[in-house]
Order: sequence, then structure tokens, then C-alpha cells
Amino acid sequence: MTDFRQQALDYHEYPTPGKISVELTTPAETSKDLALAYSPGVAEPVREIAQDPDNAYRYTAKGNMVAVITNGTAILGLGNLGPLASKPVMEGKALLFKRFAGLDAIDIEVSHRTTQDFINTVANIADTFGGINLEDIKAPECFEIEQALIERCNVPVFHDDQHGTAIVTAAGMLNALEIQGKKLAESRIVCLGAGAAAIACMELLIKCGAQREHIYMLDSKGVIHTRRDDLNEYKQLFANNTDKRTLKDVIDGADIFVGVSGPNLLNEDELKLMAPNPVIFACSNPDPEIKPEVAMAARDDLIMGTGRSDYPNQVNNVLCFPFMFRGALDVRATEINDEMKVAAVEAIRQLAKEPVPDSVLKAADVKELNFGRDYIIPKPIDPRLCQRVARAVAEAAVKSGAAKIDLPKNYMQD
Amino acid sequence: MTDFRQQALDYHEYPTPGKISVELTTPAETSKDLALAYSPGVAEPVREIAQDPDNAYRYTAKGNMVAVITNGTAILGLGNLGPLASKPVMEGKALLFKRFAGLDAIDIEVSHRTTQDFINTVANIADTFGGINLEDIKAPECFEIEQALIERCNVPVFHDDQHGTAIVTAAGMLNALEIQGKKLAESRIVCLGAGAAAIACMELLIKCGAQREHIYMLDSKGVIHTRRDDLNEYKQLFANNTDKRTLKDVIDGADIFVGVSGPNLLNEDELKLMAPNPVIFACSNPDPEIKPEVAMAARDDLIMGTGRSDYPNQVNNVLCFPFMFRGALDVRATEINDEMKVAAVEAIRQLAKEPVPDSVLKAADVKELNFGRDYIIPKPIDPRLCQRVARAVAEAAVKSGAAKIDLPKNYMQD
Repeated sequence: MTDFRQQALDYHEYPTPGKISVELTTPAETSKDLALAYSPGVAEPVREIAQDPDNAYRYTAKGNMVAVITNGTAILGLGNLGPLASKPVMEGKALLFKRFAGLDAIDIEVSHRTTQDFINTVANIADTFGGINLEDIKAPECFEIEQALIERCNVPVFHDDQHGTAIVTAAGMLNALEIQGKKLAESRIVCLGAGAAAIACMELLIKCGAQREHIYMLDSKGVIHTRRDDLNEYKQLFANNTDKRTLKDVIDGADIFVGVSGPNLLNEDELKLMAPNPVIFACSNPDPEIKPEVAMAARDDLIMGTGRSDYPNQVNNVLCFPFMFRGALDVRATEINDEMKVAAVEAIRQLAKEPVPDSVLKAADVKELNFGRDYIIPKPIDPRLCQRVARAVAEAAVKSGAAKIDLPKNYMQD
Repeated sequence: MTDFRQQALDYHEYPTPGKISVELTTPAETSKDLALAYSPGVAEPVREIAQDPDNAYRYTAKGNMVAVITNGTAILGLGNLGPLASKPVMEGKALLFKRFAGLDAIDIEVSHRTTQDFINTVANIADTFGGINLEDIKAPECFEIEQALIERCNVPVFHDDQHGTAIVTAAGMLNALEIQGKKLAESRIVCLGAGAAAIACMELLIKCGAQREHIYMLDSKGVIHTRRDDLNEYKQLFANNTDKRTLKDVIDGADIFVGVSGPNLLNEDELKLMAPNPVIFACSNPDPEIKPEVAMAARDDLIMGTGRSDYPNQVNNVLCFPFMFRGALDVRATEINDEMKVAAVEAIRQLAKEPVPDSVLKAADVKELNFGRDYIIPKPIDPRLCQRVARAVAEAAVKSGAAKIDLPKNYMQD
């Protein structure tokens, strides 16, 4: 582990500090080049944009540029370490945007006093970019922040910890339930955790058919129920009219467990109380709510997903966010609406049911991957993801009226 | 000219919209790469930075990253066209930072209500970057903005329209005066224009030895004098206790003319009134205050500079700003102080006195360039500029106490 630690530090320090750079996409050698790039030539696109703001998509990098913005209040599993310390994570996110979807992404770390101050800062710089990916902002502030920015900004704003997690979770969950022969509408759901990801996951599952009254959400104080008076407005939406108080109470007979909390919070005995053929997503990272080895030993009728790449069924945001933005930006969507999110869920689901190309098998170092218990969701390295998800998102944006332009001709065709 | 217009638009539209992209500096192909770049490896540099903020320079792109920030209120010679329309200029500036000094630079266009709102927005995001280049912000707000940001930010803040212009102007002016056999302290100066560049140029000339009472500054209403009651606090510093009211009044017998105003505002007859062996910097771009052909025909004892690359003695900010930031960032300067500015002036001055390499002659398409009337200042394409100016700036930063680290070993040595 020390070795991995040093490798990770070296990776960030060399060949140059950090992981991203800004490069030129146009020639800049001769005086002629510079006369076109800067004064006097640059005046021409300036005039065009002054006449019609949409020309910014034609003459500047805006339309391919995503800002990854944070205040560092909820960094990975590490907590509130402040904006500067979050920079490697934000640069990492920028790296993933480029690697998976060819998007230019730049990190912005915001120091601020009030929530309103954060909102205002981001809104003031938003027009610089084609879209805004909010990241690692703690709950419950993240909800207010995202909502306010969606209202104030002309470009899509997407808090990935909420919706990216929710979309990938929903895609995997729907496939897992299909294999288990269960329906989401009839499933009893336990959600351990009540933060940004938990609330967004449950809201999206409800949009996909789950019944709100079948959901039992737990925070650090136990089950969220209607008699509690310590709930913020977001948790209140999940207050269940129940006498059940503990994880053990609610997991008894549950079909679904979604863990977005912390390591080892679900034990073998609790797992055994679940209904036959349950689905367990233990997404705490790197240490899940229950170790896959332990879960599998406890019962053999479950389908399990985690956040880890070294087990089957990795529930990983990277299956969604690069392509969500790719699709949204390619049709100049002004927002990322529910239709686009559901389209992403469906596209990710469907891809898991298709034959897997050899290149993916090779990269995943496995002989085969067939839709089933150990393969409910595509691998992050699957190159078809960009095409499928971006196209589905872009089509949904156009259909739902969120897009400012039509799909480019032959967009993301095979 | 239509042809050039289309060329400029095409340059900005192809091969991809805009002029910059974000690229990866580390490998991101394998699962191992991604485990180092993002979760779980990224937690290691996060922890290091949380312990010591200076580690951001070691593990992130911060130390080589400049933000080019504007509100679009004074775009080139085009005026207040708003933040979005300024984007091609800001991307152009980013291009110049990369091309000339290898710095990563990203543009940020800020929409805001009040000046305080702009200041707050920039201060809130400042820690993301190694330095902040303010650009195309109108006077007098730019003075308040820069001063407030210098106070609030831990990284250097530099309004290039002010200080970049001033530094290059001072370097060229001192050399021109040397050739004309004049002393700055004894020179009578006319400054046509009273905006950001004008005021910064005059302040820096004063730091280099000019006498404030020898300066006659003119705004759109004529000479700035002590009887006027319409002057903002910045112009008031140049209110001259004089009865002279017009350009003609003050140019009579002047040694120096600095034009940072608009096209064709100085005529032949006024030029003829100047003292023997005058220096004329007509920096309005693309059309100077007086055409070089006209000026040269009017009298043959002058030295003339313009903002244009197609005449001798181009007074161009690009001689300074990339290298000012290069030097400042390389020693992690917390500000750009007067010592660093004067060091840049001296470095630029001295370089013009050295023999010019063949590569520069070839690029400039001239047979020779010898220090004198037609070569008072280096060519922007001179590759020695980075080395000389960055080193001078970095040394001055260390000496004046602005630097957080020492010069790297053998920094910018031949």
C-alpha cells in the first residue's frame, strides 16, 4: 500500500505537476498566424459573437468545454478538506472527461463564505463554458446550489455525485431486478445513507417506477421516519410512516439494498434477513458496506454491485458523466432534464445486454462477459458507451425541447 | 480586407471551434492509470495538499496555470461588448501565454452586477490558478479591481492592459531617449489618452525618472488640469497646474508623445511643434494616432513606435506578459511588485542592444537589426525574451521578498 501511495504521488508529480495542460488547436508560429489569432484578426469573431451569442459555439472553445467546479466540502470519502486540497480530484475528473468523451474540462476550486456566495460565483463565470459539472459539494447545500444554478445559468448544470451516481445505479438496478425476476414498483428498498448520492438515487429510482413508501432511508441516526424532527427538507421527502427504527428492522424482507454510506455497515446476519433473490449495491469506496466475499458466502441468490473495479458489476459514475455532457453539449442543451437522465439509464442498461467486443474482454482481462448475475452493467472501458449514451442523451434533449440545435447529421452512428 | 476577415473567422472555426484545448499530461489508458489518476490513488495528493497547501504546486497544474480574466468592458479597440464576445480575445491571450512562455492559460469571462461582485467572483476562484492576468476591463473600474484583488489573492494579479503596456512602453522609451540623447527626468511628456494604459504608462515612467509635473495628459475633453472638476481620482493624480488646454498647446516643445487613444488624433502640424529629436509612440491599434508615413515625412529627427507589426519599433505587450508570469510563477511570487516591473523594463531594454540572431532576422524578414532609430525594442518573435525577462523578473521577486521559493538551479541560463 505504501508502494501504491508513492506511485500515486509520483503519477501526480511527473512529468510535470498535475494531470492536465492547455494546448493550442491552431497554428501559432508565424506573424501571420498571430495576426489571425490575436490582434487584429481576433476582432472579427468578437464582432460576430457580439451580434449573436450563439456564434461563441462557432468561434471559441466554449462548446466543448466543461468546468468541473467544487468547494471541496465533500472530497471523495475524505470529507471537507477545502477547495485547494480537492484540486487533484477535480483535475482527475477533467482527465476522465477527456479520456472518455473527448471533452475539454478545466477545474475551478471556489473559496466562499455563504452558499449564496458560491452560487453567485459560479453563475458569474458560467457563460465561459459549455456546461458545468458540480463535484464533491456536501449535502444538503448541494441541492440548493444545483437548483439555483440551474435557474441562473444558460448552460447545463449537473451535480455528478447526485445524478451520475443515480443514473448508473438505476441502470444496474433495473438490469439486476430483471435477472432476479423482480419489478421495481413492487420492490422494498433499503437505502443506507442520506446524502447527495442517496437522495438522488432514490429520486431517480422513483422516476423509474419505485414506490416512495417502499423506500426506507437511513442516516447516522437510523431510519428516517415521520416522527423525527431533525430532518432537513430533503430527507423529509423520504420520511417513512413506520415503526421500524434500525437497519435490522428495515432490511428484514427487503428486495434491494443500496449502500452509499461507509465501510462494513451491513453485516452477514442482516443480509440473510433480506427477501429471496435480493440486489445489493454496496457503493462505499474503496471499502464497501459489506465485502463481496462475505456477502457471497452468506447467500448465493443475490446480485451484488460495488464501486470497485476489482469485482464484477462496478457501479461507476464514469459510465455516465462524460457521455451525458458529450450528448448535452453536442445539441447545446440548456439543461440536463429528467428525460435525458432516463435516456442515459436506458442506454447504459441496453448496452449490458449486447455481445461484448474482444477489445473490452481483453482490457477487462476476462474470457467472456454475458448479461447475467456477474455482468449487469457495462465496463467503463467499453468504447461503445460514448456513442450509445451520448446519442440517447442528445436525442432526449431534442425531443424534450432542451436542445438549441438538432443532432448533427449521422451523430454517433456506427 | 474581406479576405482577411474570412481568414480570421476560418482560423477561429477550424479545425475545431476556438484556439485552445485541455489535454492530458499523464497516461490514462489502462485501469491502473485511472486508479492512480482518480479513485483511489488521487486521495494521496489530496491528503498531502490538505496538510500543506504548497503541495498544490507539486501535485497539480496550479503552478503553471494562468487565468485570463475579463468582464468584456473594454475589448481591444472595440469597447464594451460584454463578457461572451470577449472570449476570442481571451483565448488568444491564452494562446500567446502558451506559445511564448509555455504557460497553461485558460480564459474566464465574468458576468457581474457591481464592481464588488466582479472582485468577489475572481477572488473566490483565484486559488485555482498560479496567477491572474486581468484583461480588457475598462477604466476607472480596473484600478479598483486590480488593487482589491492584489489585496485579497495569494497569487500574483496583473492587469496587462495597464502594466504590460507600461513596461514595454518604458523599455522602448528609455532606449529611444538614449538614442536621441535625452533624459527622461528632463523630458516634457504629452500623453494622449487617460485610460488604464495611459495612467499606468505615466506612473511607470515616473518610477523610471520622469517628473510628474512635466506630464500633460489629455482625455476626450482636453488637457487634464487642476481647475477641472470632472476628474476621477486616478486622473486627478495627473492634473497639471497649467493654463494649456489643447493638444496643440501642450505638444509645443514636448520631447515625448505617447498616444493610447484613437486613430489620427495627432496631425502633422502638431508634430512639427515638438522639440528637436522627439519620441513618438502612437500606440492606437490598428490605426495609430498618426500614420508613420505622415510622421516621417513631416520631420526626420524623430523616433517612432506603434502597436503594429508592419512598422519598426512595435510596442507590443507580448514582449512582457508571458515572461512576467513565467518568472513570477517559477519562484511562486505572491505578487508582481514594482521591482519586478522595473526589472522587466531593464531586461527588455538591454536585449535590444544585443546582436540579433539570424533566426530572428529571418522571421522578421529583414537583413539586419541594429540598436538605433528603427530598432529600439526587441521583436516579439525573439526567443531570448523568455529567458531574459523571466529571469530578471524571478530574480527581482526573490530579491524584493515577493518570492516563496528560490530560483530553480541554473534557471533560464544560456
